[in-house]
Amino acid sequence: MRRILAITGGVGGAKLALGLARHLAPDEVLFAVNTGDDFEHLGLEIAPDLDTLTYTLAGLANPELGWGRADETWNFMETLAALGGETWFRLGDRDLALHVARTRLLAAGVSRTDATDRISRALGIEHRIVPMSDDPVRTLVHTPDGTLAFQHYFVRERCAPTVTGFTFDGIADARPNPAILAWLETATGIVICPSNPFVSVDPLLNLPGLRAALAACPAPVVAVSPIVGGQAIKGPTAKMMQELRVPATAAAVAAHYGDLLDGFVLDRQDAALDGALRPATIVAQTVMLTLADRMALAETVLDFVDALR
Amino acid sequence: MRRILAITGGVGGAKLALGLARHLAPDEVLFAVNTGDDFEHLGLEIAPDLDTLTYTLAGLANPELGWGRADETWNFMETLAALGGETWFRLGDRDLALHVARTRLLAAGVSRTDATDRISRALGIEHRIVPMSDDPVRTLVHTPDGTLAFQHYFVRERCAPTVTGFTFDGIADARPNPAILAWLETATGIVICPSNPFVSVDPLLNLPGLRAALAACPAPVVAVSPIVGGQAIKGPTAKMMQELRVPATAAAVAAHYGDLLDGFVLDRQDAALDGALRPATIVAQTVMLTLADRMALAETVLDFVDALR
Repeated sequence: MRRILAITGGVGGAKLALGLARHLAPDEVLFAVNTGDDFEHLGLEIAPDLDTLTYTLAGLANPELGWGRADETWNFMETLAALGGETWFRLGDRDLALHVARTRLLAAGVSRTDATDRISRALGIEHRIVPMSDDPVRTLVHTPDGTLAFQHYFVRERCAPTVTGFTFDGIADARPNPAILAWLETATGIVICPSNPFVSVDPLLNLPGLRAALAACPAPVVAVSPIVGGQAIKGPTAKMMQELRVPATAAAVAAHYGDLLDGFVLDRQDAALDGALRPATIVAQTVMLTLADRMALAETVLDFVDALR
Repeated sequence: MRRILAITGGVGGAKLALGLARHLAPDEVLFAVNTGDDFEHLGLEIAPDLDTLTYTLAGLANPELGWGRADETWNFMETLAALGGETWFRLGDRDLALHVARTRLLAAGVSRTDATDRISRALGIEHRIVPMSDDPVRTLVHTPDGTLAFQHYFVRERCAPTVTGFTFDGIADARPNPAILAWLETATGIVICPSNPFVSVDPLLNLPGLRAALAACPAPVVAVSPIVGGQAIKGPTAKMMQELRVPATAAAVAAHYGDLLDGFVLDRQDAALDGALRPATIVAQTVMLTLADRMALAETVLDFVDALR
């Protein structure tokens, strides 16, 4: 039996996570999700990466938008706009209910982990999704013109500002989710999904003790490159790398994760790097346009993990 | 020029208020609204009577439900139900935006009066609606089985519990809205709309100094009976009166307001009482099914007020 820890952020990572969920039983995989993107907005506790994975695994994700729900209406937002409210972060009528439900649970003293479990179950998800920590961590984006909260950078400013670095506010006091540490005791593989290394995966890796726990775990660590032919499939990863004066290449992503990696999955477009990197590499089709693509890449990654054990 | 202070609660009062707004220019009437029904729900500041009048004057009220908006959808509530959230107080997708907008304004330190003004203006309302106070007052309903917050009694329990009395929590420390006191300095008439005397009008009358200010104002005070032929047009007024061992009659409503009243408007069904009550009385059609009914009653009331000056 496999015991996979899958580390993921939002859209790109959630695609592979869906593929993994189709191959693995609920007791064979734990999804550990970045919460550095979380923020309070309109009085609501919003957790974009948890929500994207939740909607993806529940079969509710909006494929056109890449966020939110497929069966969405926008009457709340339209009316809030008419009333002069903040509308830069778009919340659909159904999506809003999830944020209100989470906010009420947290206000009642329920942990983020338990709130995530309850929401997952209510949406019929059998696999377990856990926030990286029950403690608040907030990703701050540094730019030449000042520091921005992540969603202000990502959504409100549409990633336009030049990035000079990141801070994960609160991380020194944040404990890794105990469910993640417990899972590592019996893990057979660790998969870093093709999410943004800097803002989706680094918050997890910077939680006190978590990187060391991953390194100490005998299971192999395999990352899937989010960079394909010098481009990010989705989001600002390549732009960030250029601004951080790192080559926007799969090789630079592998180097970023460093000695944590035992294996690295390259896209076919980057096949020239195969064998030239420190960790073991394989080449696969990492661009996942269809469910079949997601399942095929998941199978390839799982076989790679097994081969590295 | 007329200067009318119109005191109102929810649905019944709002019908006459709409009639008054059609006859009077924005500088001829101030609508003073009960806020004892207000409550916090799902983290939102909800003001049912303010909202009913706001939607009514904006032409957005739902005529079938008697609350909320006409152009409403329910995807938020449906999804919240699926997530196990509280659904006894139904919030439409568009209605929700008003509550979020108000909650954000109050959280930012804006007063209830200013928040109400901003929302009114955003919805195109030219007449001024003010909460009875900027301070919190909460109507508590006493029953043989304990005390209920008003909306728990009214909506969640559908007025089923027997009422033994009311408390207006916080009222001793609540100041009447200064806009109401200022309006009284030049008022030519005070109209108590056909709202529930106990839970819609009494909270205003019990604000420290407000009843005395109304009595001291030289303008006549006229109430429209919310009881017609021993029945309330809408809501639990008659049921409450029976439970409070008060006859469920228009005469008992007039007696309840006591020496505050200079005039009282009876329905045709109660014409037998004409001339038998302490204040001056007139008989009119007080059941307002159409906009024409509302405008006709408003005109009758305004003429009555003028005659009493």
